[in-house]
Amino acid sequence: MGRARLTVSYLGSGYHGFAANPGVRTVAGELTEAISKVVRAPVELTGAGRTDAGVHAWGQVVSCDLPDGTDLADLAARVNKLCAPGIAVRAAEWAADDFDARRSATSRTYRYHIWNDPAPNPLLAGLVWHVPRQLDLIAVREAVAPLIGEHDFTSFCRKPKVPEDQPQPSMVRIVRAIDVRRVDDTPTLRFEVTATSFCHQMVRSLVGTLVDAGLGRLTPADVTAALRARDRSAAGTVAPPDGLILWSVGYEGTRWDAGR
Amino acid sequence: MGRARLTVSYLGSGYHGFAANPGVRTVAGELTEAISKVVRAPVELTGAGRTDAGVHAWGQVVSCDLPDGTDLADLAARVNKLCAPGIAVRAAEWAADDFDARRSATSRTYRYHIWNDPAPNPLLAGLVWHVPRQLDLIAVREAVAPLIGEHDFTSFCRKPKVPEDQPQPSMVRIVRAIDVRRVDDTPTLRFEVTATSFCHQMVRSLVGTLVDAGLGRLTPADVTAALRARDRSAAGTVAPPDGLILWSVGYEGTRWDAGR
Repeated sequence: MGRARLTVSYLGSGYHGFAANPGVRTVAGELTEAISKVVRAPVELTGAGRTDAGVHAWGQVVSCDLPDGTDLADLAARVNKLCAPGIAVRAAEWAADDFDARRSATSRTYRYHIWNDPAPNPLLAGLVWHVPRQLDLIAVREAVAPLIGEHDFTSFCRKPKVPEDQPQPSMVRIVRAIDVRRVDDTPTLRFEVTATSFCHQMVRSLVGTLVDAGLGRLTPADVTAALRARDRSAAGTVAPPDGLILWSVGYEGTRWDAGR
Repeated sequence: MGRARLTVSYLGSGYHGFAANPGVRTVAGELTEAISKVVRAPVELTGAGRTDAGVHAWGQVVSCDLPDGTDLADLAARVNKLCAPGIAVRAAEWAADDFDARRSATSRTYRYHIWNDPAPNPLLAGLVWHVPRQLDLIAVREAVAPLIGEHDFTSFCRKPKVPEDQPQPSMVRIVRAIDVRRVDDTPTLRFEVTATSFCHQMVRSLVGTLVDAGLGRLTPADVTAALRARDRSAAGTVAPPDGLILWSVGYEGTRWDAGR
């Protein structure tokens, strides 16, 4: 057996999230079944990010052990036929034996798209959050500033299901960059967030809060206060899953270009 | 009653085409029902283009008569709620009494998108034709040349269902422009075709033939010969509906900018 690294894209709309979950249709479930069928052996997948139901991926990274001598290009082509049109393996290569898609990852980049126009855009249904009122991008960017760097993001994360008497996991994360821009001259706004890792619903919570700032409902000082409160109810809206894409995953010594 | 002009976008994937057809879900059917419900009166829609099942629209134009005093902005907002997420009225305005979305139109522009990459793109599922082998864009553009201008496009049109003993409708059309370009630096190729009007499956047949040229299966001379043959079997592949969007409709004295 050898360790393989797969780059996987999927349209999250049709799946109950990435992580395998017996009895429901998930990305990892479909992918595991297809790969096992092609290599005629059981496989176990590790994904870099556990995306929620309705969340998409362009550059999800998956590691798994495959029989030696597996033709990876042929595997990808056959898996893509089995998983079409919702899931596609865009690249498949052999990796070091200790490569682990989740543990080896040093950063994750998510993109979030907003359709900022009075009328919805049916051509982007399921891929964007429709915000009818015009966002003030300067106000959004001002609200970004306090979020950059190492912080306790408890206010922006869904509380993990750990019994109260057990030690609670840390919500400290390092947000490296949040870039907000208009795509060409269209009503599409693109939020790109890179961090070491994210806790549950963190990107959607950050984007929702930034949209509140762009609509004049929160000031940058409110965002700072929300961060300091370490209290879920202090943050703003949680953006819907539709607009979210796991865009790319960074690894030590690799430079990752999505180039969609 | 007054004549209204609506600009309508839709994701064709969920509909059996634009034209109303009792018993099946069509764009005009859903739209007629929603508008009638809002204005509490029967309405009859005329669309500029009859798009096939699976074909999308960004700037379909529809005319209809509505009760005087109808608040068009409110109508659009309410129709959009009823028709979400597949159909949206992007603009609604009063028009001259003799405005007819179909008969007054002087040109139609369609866009066709191809995902030209070995691996499919699930994020664009239903919106593109996946062509795995790399197209030679220079060869495509050379094959465009003989198609521009006024021609009998019988070879590129599905034969209309008119009894043999009846006069057959003319397939002469004026193709004003065919623009082929790569979108940014992505594997997405965009074909934009503008003509006075199109006969049935003409855009898909033109794009399919141009793709054959880009794959080295047809030369520009073959395309000229196909055009002259006035025979459906002389043309190349018919591209699938997924990649096709009715982009905009031109009218006398108006300059139409889609600006998506």
